[in-house]
Amino acid sequence: MNELLQQLDATLAARRAADPADSYVASLHHKGLNKILEKVGEEATEVILAAKDAAAGGDGERDALVGEVADLWFHCMVMLSHLDLDSDAVLECLRQRFGLSGLAEKAARGGAQSDNG
Amino acid sequence: MNELLQQLDATLAARRAADPADSYVASLHHKGLNKILEKVGEEATEVILAAKDAAAGGDGERDALVGEVADLWFHCMVMLSHLDLDSDAVLECLRQRFGLSGLAEKAARGGAQSDNG
Amino acid sequence: MNELLQQLDATLAARRAADPADSYVASLHHKGLNKILEKVGEEATEVILAAKDAAAGGDGERDALVGEVADLWFHCMVMLSHLDLDSDAVLECLRQRFGLSGLAEKAARGGAQSDNG
Amino acid sequence: MNELLQQLDATLAARRAADPADSYVASLHHKGLNKILEKVGEEATEVILAAKDAAAGGDGERDALVGEVADLWFHCMVMLSHLDLDSDAVLECLRQRFGLSGLAEKAARGGAQSDNG
Repeated sequence: MNELLQQLDATLAARRAADPADSYVASLHHKGLNKILEKVGEEATEVILAAKDAAAGGDGERDALVGEVADLWFHCMVMLSHLDLDSDAVLECLRQRFGLSGLAEKAARGGAQSDNG
Repeated sequence: MNELLQQLDATLAARRAADPADSYVASLHHKGLNKILEKVGEEATEVILAAKDAAAGGDGERDALVGEVADLWFHCMVMLSHLDLDSDAVLECLRQRFGLSGLAEKAARGGAQSDNG
Repeated sequence: MNELLQQLDATLAARRAADPADSYVASLHHKGLNKILEKVGEEATEVILAAKDAAAGGDGERDALVGEVADLWFHCMVMLSHLDLDSDAVLECLRQRFGLSGLAEKAARGGAQSDNG
Repeated sequence: MNELLQQLDATLAARRAADPADSYVASLHHKGLNKILEKVGEEATEVILAAKDAAAGGDGERDALVGEVADLWFHCMVMLSHLDLDSDAVLECLRQRFGLSGLAEKAARGGAQSDNG
């Protein structure tokens, strides 16, 4: 489950140039930033509703919540792509704030001295 | 920049049990799901505003946008942790939707047959 | 207290019982609270985007902003109706908080002693 | 058309010029449009959460919901004021969309021919 967001960044970059009639991502870029941000707002609302339902409910609601968070993050990544940014910058920001190494997979195979445990 | 979200999941799980007086994450869990979801909603709004400003502005606004997306994803991860979920489920959902292998780092060191390039 | 919103409350109450195939309001009630709240979230996002555009733009953007606020308040009123509440309770809350009389129209024709200036 | 909201518009216009140290409304204007819109987004989220809780709960939750809608509408009105607009334009928009007369109070005292019942 690594490099997954980087792969998705690359997929989004490729689809940005596709025909809007063939690609949902291309159609979002074609409609412009406001439409992409409307989707971010919509998906944030759906995350909130799904979390309330998951807290009150069962496994189906929990799966639905995971799907809504995926939708939200995906549309955030489309927005970043629209502005020529990508998820790497977001992860680097999180890494710095939390003092994470970002190198667990190297550590796990003996190749790194983690600088912060 | 891999395993970063998994490291953050682990950090969030550890801080969930901390003293709310010492840890922002613990304080959010202590206040409960509604407070965590209020933060998700707040951060989504800040992403939207920052994206509008970044589209109209310069590098400072772009850095600010990245920070707001980091805030949004972070609070989503706190919410997932609150409900005993984590970012792995979200990434797996994205992997399935987009036919991504999630194995680029293995492929890069020769250990995987990527199933979809 | 507010004739226009009271009229709209009455209209919404009447349409709640209509055929969902004929009435947008009835279709929202039929789909349920989550769908109505998704609309509240969507319209809030559209208000935010329209306000940013209005601040940067011209009269067309200002008209669009007014329309988005109308959409937001309308869907709030549908939500209140869904839960057997109405806009009167909201206006009474605002009246109390701001020490307003709600009676200016009576005062204007000489029929009231305003209780709070 | 709506005396209570008109009174609140007037109150908001007066407070816009107050000392930010003395007036919450003035402090919002001083901080600027983004801060006002952050509040709109926050309050929309709180409306959504309160509606979910009201649907699952009792009278206390219903009162809380009414208060959250009041907060949302209030911050929308501060935003309109910030952009030299007011609630009259919003009500006029609703009046036109729903074919409402906005004149019930006149009709009630015999002074109007309602154009649409």
